[in-house]
Amino acid sequence: MTEAFDAVDIIRTKRDHGVLSPEQIDWTIDAYTRGEIADEQMAALNMAILLNGMNRAEISRWTAAMIASGERMDFSSLDRPTSDKHSTGGVGDKITLPLAPLVAVFGVAVPQLSGRGLGHTGGTLDKLESIPGWQAHLSNEDMLRQLSEVGAVICAAGTGLAPADKKLYALRDVTGTVEAIPLIASSIMSKKIAEGTGSLVLDVKVGSGAFMKDVGQARELAETMVALGKDAGVNTVALLTGMSTPLGLTAGNAIEVEESVEVLAGGGPADVVELTVRLAEEMLAAAGVRDADPAAALQDGRAMDVWNAMIEAQGGDPRAALPVARESEVILAPADGVLVELDALAVGVAAWRLGAGRARKEDQVQAGAGVRMHAKPGARVRAGEPLMTLLTDTPEKFDRAREALADAVVIAPGAMGPAQQLIIDRIA
Amino acid sequence: MTEAFDAVDIIRTKRDHGVLSPEQIDWTIDAYTRGEIADEQMAALNMAILLNGMNRAEISRWTAAMIASGERMDFSSLDRPTSDKHSTGGVGDKITLPLAPLVAVFGVAVPQLSGRGLGHTGGTLDKLESIPGWQAHLSNEDMLRQLSEVGAVICAAGTGLAPADKKLYALRDVTGTVEAIPLIASSIMSKKIAEGTGSLVLDVKVGSGAFMKDVGQARELAETMVALGKDAGVNTVALLTGMSTPLGLTAGNAIEVEESVEVLAGGGPADVVELTVRLAEEMLAAAGVRDADPAAALQDGRAMDVWNAMIEAQGGDPRAALPVARESEVILAPADGVLVELDALAVGVAAWRLGAGRARKEDQVQAGAGVRMHAKPGARVRAGEPLMTLLTDTPEKFDRAREALADAVVIAPGAMGPAQQLIIDRIA
Repeated sequence: MTEAFDAVDIIRTKRDHGVLSPEQIDWTIDAYTRGEIADEQMAALNMAILLNGMNRAEISRWTAAMIASGERMDFSSLDRPTSDKHSTGGVGDKITLPLAPLVAVFGVAVPQLSGRGLGHTGGTLDKLESIPGWQAHLSNEDMLRQLSEVGAVICAAGTGLAPADKKLYALRDVTGTVEAIPLIASSIMSKKIAEGTGSLVLDVKVGSGAFMKDVGQARELAETMVALGKDAGVNTVALLTGMSTPLGLTAGNAIEVEESVEVLAGGGPADVVELTVRLAEEMLAAAGVRDADPAAALQDGRAMDVWNAMIEAQGGDPRAALPVARESEVILAPADGVLVELDALAVGVAAWRLGAGRARKEDQVQAGAGVRMHAKPGARVRAGEPLMTLLTDTPEKFDRAREALADAVVIAPGAMGPAQQLIIDRIA
Repeated sequence: MTEAFDAVDIIRTKRDHGVLSPEQIDWTIDAYTRGEIADEQMAALNMAILLNGMNRAEISRWTAAMIASGERMDFSSLDRPTSDKHSTGGVGDKITLPLAPLVAVFGVAVPQLSGRGLGHTGGTLDKLESIPGWQAHLSNEDMLRQLSEVGAVICAAGTGLAPADKKLYALRDVTGTVEAIPLIASSIMSKKIAEGTGSLVLDVKVGSGAFMKDVGQARELAETMVALGKDAGVNTVALLTGMSTPLGLTAGNAIEVEESVEVLAGGGPADVVELTVRLAEEMLAAAGVRDADPAAALQDGRAMDVWNAMIEAQGGDPRAALPVARESEVILAPADGVLVELDALAVGVAAWRLGAGRARKEDQVQAGAGVRMHAKPGARVRAGEPLMTLLTDTPEKFDRAREALADAVVIAPGAMGPAQQLIIDRIA
């Protein structure tokens, strides 16, 4: 039992640049979860936090209180270490798909609890659900069994984890208080810590297609989350990675699964391979595994074997044909030159409008919809050659997708240019 | 019809230190009144306004939009000018009672729409309701007739004036966003402008018993409100007046009416007389009346005649005995010396706890409850002589009232000291 506080006093404290006590924070999260603090009070507090900030001790306690609002998973019965990865979200970010089985190859269990997409960034579960038969929902027992037998699981997070975060996130979404670093960091880390992983690698995206548009903000978020992880006894490392252009050559659902399988087969776009291998190295090191060679496990089929077992364990057929969009339209390069910009946000919005994403939680996504790219920044293109293919089951969506892409492409004279900087920094 | 905007965009604009457009402001107030903007969204916006401010043009438009949310009164059919007074609220502030009839003596109509008390500041209606038979609620027609026949009316504001303000005020009260100068100024001025007065004198209180604790804040509020009045064509003047100690020697309901009648009879405490005369001079000057001598009208019974007519017109008996509290306790001076401090907030809280005020809107007040003071700061007191008398119908309240007064009194060695500075500044 926590002592009773007054919500207005707590709001005033933060409004007047004060520091909330541990007891005030515990009471705030508990009272909000129980409905004793009203949404309008929490909204005012969130805005005060966004504008006046919280110190590390406050953020750490806020995170702990959100974890305490729900259940906590426990993988200590497994005979191997666990490691998890979280991306702050980007366009074409299918890395979780090849990464989870790849890390499992080396004896580290990967309990990857994932979500669905909202807005222009895709959701891992939406992508995997394009595989015929695949089921996102597992009981805790089935999840533990799969981790023990296969080594990797990607599934939906149970509703019992950090319920305070769920309620708070929905509120922040409608009150202009999403973009508060203390609230972002505590939201992500409360879920990841409640999931019970032993180590964690954060992929903090930076650029037009990411939540954080500049490196300074991304670094602050990464540093805050790494500190929260360490406070909770989770060995946490963060990479800052580029998201000014999409990852790989696909943004959608089935087409991203297809590209992930190419990577697992030893091929695939260079940037997807590079980031998958780098994140695998970080996860393995964080879990205490030395001298692993993840790049080799992509080449020799070991990662593919785990992938196939992982998909089958959740009812999916890894060899089944994936859904294909009924309609397509090709966008041609308007000029000769070097593709110097292919904007991540614009491609993400186009894929979303084509039906790959949802505007509201209850919307359905189209498995085959999305954008297939035929060139990446740095590549030479020729006028009239295909630059992108738009895919959808509902051709009336092409116009709005083309609008989103109107200023997405910049072609400059020249022979070759620089590609996106993929790994910007590492924070441990 | 206003164009539709997005509430989250508007919140973000103010959050990021932007300026809201006139159209955004109109839509915000209208959509909130209609329930299209949710309380949690308005709470976040209010906190952003409190922390990031609004410029004069924004506050002016916000005020106009709140006026437009309801009806607007019109006194242009009267054969005389109108003038109104608003106090930001203090302890023992009964000035409206003698002031309204005093100004009416000189041919200026005073349509004084008032409220009830909440918390430690008393409400003018609560005070007048201690007069047997007196009714606070008048129709617009009765109000106009009384203004024409008697010249002064003090009554409850209709629910049709600035409904947006009513909804917004209730929200601010529970979300820690009361103390935002743009929101305070627009709340007060939207009601006063909607009431249709031709001129307005603002009494902005400063000190422990007031909303504004320091002169800088009070001056900013006063300047903002004077500018809003001028923008709306209402000749507006503000006085900054002291509220570190109560006005007069009474804080309660019936006992404040009694003191007001003493002033109308040519007596009463010097500070109440001084402020009443000064505010009357300001109201008369603002309404265009020159060479009036309000002090004389208190001495020769003209103000009392209007008072009697005003109370009778609303069903009251100005000669009836006022209710008296059933129980009393005397607080004695603990030492010889000069009373250098008698804290307004402490006296206000004590009167409130004795039953003179209410904690929630639906509470009843006790007509006879309150605090009668026997000395004012600056006066010489002797150990063991009465300093204050606590009055209530419910003696179990004495203990909590005494607690409120524990640190209220400071007595220092000496013969005589300075009284409170009553008029601090004038802003026109």
